[in-house]
Amino acid sequence: MAPHDALSEFDLIKHYFVRQRPGRATLGIGDDCALMTPAAGKQIAISSDMLVEDRHFFAGADARMLGHKSLAVNLSDLAAMGARPVAFTLALALPQAERSWLAGFADGLFALADAFNCELIGGDTTKGPLNICITVFGELAPGQALRRSAAVAGDDIWVSGTLGDARLALAGYRVEQELAPDDLLMAGVRMHTPTPRVTLGCALAEAGLAHAAIDISDGLVGDLGHILKASQVGATLDVDALPAGPVLARQETSLRRRYTAAGGDDYELCFTAPTASREAIAALAASCGTPVTRVGRIEAQSGLRLVDAKGLPLDLALSSFDHFSE
Amino acid sequence: MAPHDALSEFDLIKHYFVRQRPGRATLGIGDDCALMTPAAGKQIAISSDMLVEDRHFFAGADARMLGHKSLAVNLSDLAAMGARPVAFTLALALPQAERSWLAGFADGLFALADAFNCELIGGDTTKGPLNICITVFGELAPGQALRRSAAVAGDDIWVSGTLGDARLALAGYRVEQELAPDDLLMAGVRMHTPTPRVTLGCALAEAGLAHAAIDISDGLVGDLGHILKASQVGATLDVDALPAGPVLARQETSLRRRYTAAGGDDYELCFTAPTASREAIAALAASCGTPVTRVGRIEAQSGLRLVDAKGLPLDLALSSFDHFSE
Repeated sequence: MAPHDALSEFDLIKHYFVRQRPGRATLGIGDDCALMTPAAGKQIAISSDMLVEDRHFFAGADARMLGHKSLAVNLSDLAAMGARPVAFTLALALPQAERSWLAGFADGLFALADAFNCELIGGDTTKGPLNICITVFGELAPGQALRRSAAVAGDDIWVSGTLGDARLALAGYRVEQELAPDDLLMAGVRMHTPTPRVTLGCALAEAGLAHAAIDISDGLVGDLGHILKASQVGATLDVDALPAGPVLARQETSLRRRYTAAGGDDYELCFTAPTASREAIAALAASCGTPVTRVGRIEAQSGLRLVDAKGLPLDLALSSFDHFSE
Repeated sequence: MAPHDALSEFDLIKHYFVRQRPGRATLGIGDDCALMTPAAGKQIAISSDMLVEDRHFFAGADARMLGHKSLAVNLSDLAAMGARPVAFTLALALPQAERSWLAGFADGLFALADAFNCELIGGDTTKGPLNICITVFGELAPGQALRRSAAVAGDDIWVSGTLGDARLALAGYRVEQELAPDDLLMAGVRMHTPTPRVTLGCALAEAGLAHAAIDISDGLVGDLGHILKASQVGATLDVDALPAGPVLARQETSLRRRYTAAGGDDYELCFTAPTASREAIAALAASCGTPVTRVGRIEAQSGLRLVDAKGLPLDLALSSFDHFSE
């Protein structure tokens, strides 16, 4: 027998995830499928991310932050493509249906969804080891997508926001790095509640100012590497120009270099653009309220060269994150 | 250090899931998002299902069957809506990247995907307790969707194929029910490799012959209940008319009645249609190669009444499957 206040699967969905508000979906939660009517002439961008306990977040992670982060990492993929968020599905495996957890998770999830007018249109719930799988849908005009393969030799390399504080927080939690409690708290905010750069990504795509883009999830060096490979180009990256997060900026140089270059979990955008676009990009980023920094140059010569502020080669012995090699 | 023959996340995707064949997607695996260009004037049907080890399948389940079933349960949702499969994303959490498992899983998955011309366009892979989350996309003309809310008093209730053998196999595996090895093998095929009724569902929707439809995943009584609730109608179901699977058909009456009425894991379609459509439906089902059976009637009086072949009330003390009450 189920305990007295146990939630059934249908009650759980109805109570925490079905919302009484007009949405864009033609048919939302409660049928075999959701129905979406695509805007005429638009393409649909689709991305799926799966978050697993003890892998992408600690056991016992705050439910509200987890609701935010689960959607944020998916919105970040839309941003990197330059697609405007429209809707998402949520598949959720839970060890048990706990009301306070569900309420917190839904709060964090919907606060971010509402900020980008992105509607929950369907999904699945089941019992199992905690696993959150979101698939997100965005719209964009044909030809506007910021593809990984579009970088051109001579392009500037840009990054949005700041890098490395999420990795620093991880080092703090793991006690690899000693941090003052306030610093850990502040860096932790970047780890737990990343800001998907949707406004900037869409603006860049719609203005036709950028060539290639990717979101920085596994670390800049690894993610930029995907652009270089797909575009068959190389690059020089000025590691000392990388914008460090406010907490990381106060750490020693070697740590700052490693975590900005290859920290992971930043969810900032890395994009390439012609040098002629510099002023226009700075103005557009300012209008989006998102800082951007030029950090290097795309080159015809293959490979990624890391240099310091003086242009001298740096060997940071970095490795990008791989789920099956750690 | 990773073992000598360990697969990286990127190698895993490239080797087992990226295919060198022309697809419908504008941009598939290998960028931040996949890009789909919707057919002009069509709606997009979307469904997500998450399969968890020890919940939806036994630990150690055959990888090829699992590849089939993971996609089949999603295609079944498209079928129940009357939408033609187009594409899907796959998010996969794996305890380890094991080559033979991945090869089998991909084989089962793509054999079914190819049968319905449904393209893998993106997804995610991560380390974690085995979890398979597929989101599937289909197309249909506006107004053609077979919604749960469209049943009308006076409609016939139909089911496709046969019911109950999947539940019988489960009883056999759990040793709740004694079955000859050949019988268990035959019933097990229905449990492990369900046939999504895509051809029938799309044909019914395109011909405008059916009103409401749902796929039978949690058991007919429970799933029909969703139609009754959404349509604000009731029904009488002739339990002895329910088409039992070939193995179940040889079992005693009480078991046959319970497992056809509420067995679960059947992935057949239950649909309602006006009595005037009977001959047209029989002809259309024959042309699809899918048997269909009339099993009851939608009525204005709310509630679901189960009756035997003589029309006498049956109380089978059934309960539909709920992930959080078992």
